[in-house]
Amino acid sequence: MTAKPLAIIAGAGPGLGAMLIQRFAAGGYHAVGLRRAADAAAESNVVAVDLSRPADVEASIADLVSHHGAPKGVVHNPSRLVIGPLAHTSLDQFEACWRDMAFSAAVLAHAVLPRMAEAGGGAFLVSGATASLRGGARFSAFASAKFALRGLTQSLAREFQPHSIHVAHIILDGIIDTATSRALHGLAPARMMSPDDIAETFWQTAHQPRSTWSHEIDLRPSSETF
Amino acid sequence: MTAKPLAIIAGAGPGLGAMLIQRFAAGGYHAVGLRRAADAAAESNVVAVDLSRPADVEASIADLVSHHGAPKGVVHNPSRLVIGPLAHTSLDQFEACWRDMAFSAAVLAHAVLPRMAEAGGGAFLVSGATASLRGGARFSAFASAKFALRGLTQSLAREFQPHSIHVAHIILDGIIDTATSRALHGLAPARMMSPDDIAETFWQTAHQPRSTWSHEIDLRPSSETF
Amino acid sequence: MTAKPLAIIAGAGPGLGAMLIQRFAAGGYHAVGLRRAADAAAESNVVAVDLSRPADVEASIADLVSHHGAPKGVVHNPSRLVIGPLAHTSLDQFEACWRDMAFSAAVLAHAVLPRMAEAGGGAFLVSGATASLRGGARFSAFASAKFALRGLTQSLAREFQPHSIHVAHIILDGIIDTATSRALHGLAPARMMSPDDIAETFWQTAHQPRSTWSHEIDLRPSSETF
Amino acid sequence: MTAKPLAIIAGAGPGLGAMLIQRFAAGGYHAVGLRRAADAAAESNVVAVDLSRPADVEASIADLVSHHGAPKGVVHNPSRLVIGPLAHTSLDQFEACWRDMAFSAAVLAHAVLPRMAEAGGGAFLVSGATASLRGGARFSAFASAKFALRGLTQSLAREFQPHSIHVAHIILDGIIDTATSRALHGLAPARMMSPDDIAETFWQTAHQPRSTWSHEIDLRPSSETF
Repeated sequence: MTAKPLAIIAGAGPGLGAMLIQRFAAGGYHAVGLRRAADAAAESNVVAVDLSRPADVEASIADLVSHHGAPKGVVHNPSRLVIGPLAHTSLDQFEACWRDMAFSAAVLAHAVLPRMAEAGGGAFLVSGATASLRGGARFSAFASAKFALRGLTQSLAREFQPHSIHVAHIILDGIIDTATSRALHGLAPARMMSPDDIAETFWQTAHQPRSTWSHEIDLRPSSETF
Repeated sequence: MTAKPLAIIAGAGPGLGAMLIQRFAAGGYHAVGLRRAADAAAESNVVAVDLSRPADVEASIADLVSHHGAPKGVVHNPSRLVIGPLAHTSLDQFEACWRDMAFSAAVLAHAVLPRMAEAGGGAFLVSGATASLRGGARFSAFASAKFALRGLTQSLAREFQPHSIHVAHIILDGIIDTATSRALHGLAPARMMSPDDIAETFWQTAHQPRSTWSHEIDLRPSSETF
Repeated sequence: MTAKPLAIIAGAGPGLGAMLIQRFAAGGYHAVGLRRAADAAAESNVVAVDLSRPADVEASIADLVSHHGAPKGVVHNPSRLVIGPLAHTSLDQFEACWRDMAFSAAVLAHAVLPRMAEAGGGAFLVSGATASLRGGARFSAFASAKFALRGLTQSLAREFQPHSIHVAHIILDGIIDTATSRALHGLAPARMMSPDDIAETFWQTAHQPRSTWSHEIDLRPSSETF
Repeated sequence: MTAKPLAIIAGAGPGLGAMLIQRFAAGGYHAVGLRRAADAAAESNVVAVDLSRPADVEASIADLVSHHGAPKGVVHNPSRLVIGPLAHTSLDQFEACWRDMAFSAAVLAHAVLPRMAEAGGGAFLVSGATASLRGGARFSAFASAKFALRGLTQSLAREFQPHSIHVAHIILDGIIDTATSRALHGLAPARMMSPDDIAETFWQTAHQPRSTWSHEIDLRPSSETF
């Protein structure tokens, strides 16, 4: 086993996911990303795994734990954005949205929380969105999945905080500044959320003292109306 | 086509479902229940269909619509209660809970809402629960599914109310008085919710005048703490 | 004492207030409005009283109770709309808004709830607004007062429902169709809420069976975005 | 004028208030507390002022600003806890609770926000409580006042964030560990919130980068059920 505590970032895409790996690594963790096979590049700190496949996730986690011990920090961050009226949102998309964002969190929770509880605790953080709190007109699939994730996260907090695992839901109420979103939205960077600022909030939340644990935190650019 | 408007009660079990059929029938609708094949008895007003199978639901609805026209009232009411700590809640149960309560609502919405919009509107009502608003410690599967259903319902309201379809979410914050729950909970009837009182609220909500549509209503016995 | 049960409508202006008096009267109550002295016309069913003056309210209620017994239905409906940026909202306006909409409800609760509890119960209903749930940019005074009213109403529900008093908060998320609002907003009546439709909801809520009490109901025109 | 930016802690009692002064001072601010005359000790960094008296607050702020410039950080933290059934909560207590916790925030906002906006911005943070979100049975006065404060804070955020003032509401969902609360509640310190941990959250929130401003954060001891 290595001396460094293990951090797992599930949903380790090029924007926020990469920054989360970097922030936990900078803070002294052995930080590993989990990402769907098709995307997995030759990065040494990313494991290719489909987060919606329980047996695969269990195998990946078991392997990581055998080398590094139970994780002390876990972030659930996969995103699948589906926007459109109901008639243009297929039931397959509706299911895929839930599977990638909500079911995958249950899969991850099953794989890590009992191990973390047994090892003495840690932090389990989840990325929410504007649609976690409000189902907008063209967000039937995305909002439903993000609501599902929020309900799950609340239940996990109430079950696992007595076992010293801090469970928190961080609502990202704005557009994350990535190469993709700059191209897509045409917003000035000052109107978007910087991935490293978001990662800093995840880091601080994961390390709140036991006397002041947050369960839900919203983040938005100062320019965002809400 | 019959002269009576069509009402569809999806999730037509022996308690609230049966009462909803009865209430809409008493109000002048041709009221039909949808219920999973295995349970479908020889009742003339119940169609056996697995609500989580899109093709089957579409076929059933198409058949009903061909005889009675687009429905004017639709209720989504299936329930699958799963309670237990995460370790005793399998991922299959987690998925089944979502499939029966949230996915089935998306399936139903796909089958009925475009037809209702084209025919001039109506009401689409959904049964919520205490766990729609709060994820309790032993409710990870149930709360996640009920949150998913609430998020979906909000999106549907915002998309379809401009098309004259009233979409509402009725939160049942208590135990429904049925033969099963009497045996299970040992509560006095006065501490439970009467299925016909609940059905009356669904009826009234479905028929609110256009100047006063509710989106969310909570119901609980007067004796319930909240 | 009269044979009819007493209903009190506090905040009995010409729009919704008058309709509430009419609806409860039509339903068999002896319905009396309370309204600030300056406005009190020569209507036989309106008592002139400043609802923010405890001694005056107590005297008026005591007088009504001596003739009609404890009220069975009470509605709190005064409104004072203040809109504007903070710099244009004086602290006197901020206080007046709270005094007319929140303090007056505490005054009314003090005067009626113990009497109603002793007499066996009844209903105590409160008019909320969009601003009860969301503090908008130009609504610092109004939202703060409406939030205060909502918090009070929740506490009263939890304290008095065990004493058979149904306490509910009805959120009016739209503009009420009155002569004033037609002149002010220039909206078509179909985009506003009809006072008699709203009054009907108050009536139905006050008479929900004990197995299905609502605490919070939202109402809006079908055309209102939310 | 001094070189240090000014921080104002309104409601500077011996527990959290003192820690907030200390934390902002440690971070390089000239930190000043405001506290009701009767309590004001011979502390050099506390100004005696009744926060519910607009003219007095304005005079105190004007004096501070003339020496230190407009504040960069402001915290509203006064508390007046009233618990009891309605019949044991006088209307004077109801009003005092609101005056000390909600009206005082409007007074403070009037005195500081326009000056901060003109000077280029800053942070305005508010202490919430469990009762900011839920009106419990014996909390009619306290919950109503804390709801009022939350509604006001939301409005201020939406009005002043475009003027570069970060407005946030921090919900303290637990008992603060002070000499008084140890005597009163008999809880182990591990079951209470440490004032310096809370102060640290206020500090971090006041200094969030503009790309990730929080509006609402909850804090509770890891042992607290919620």
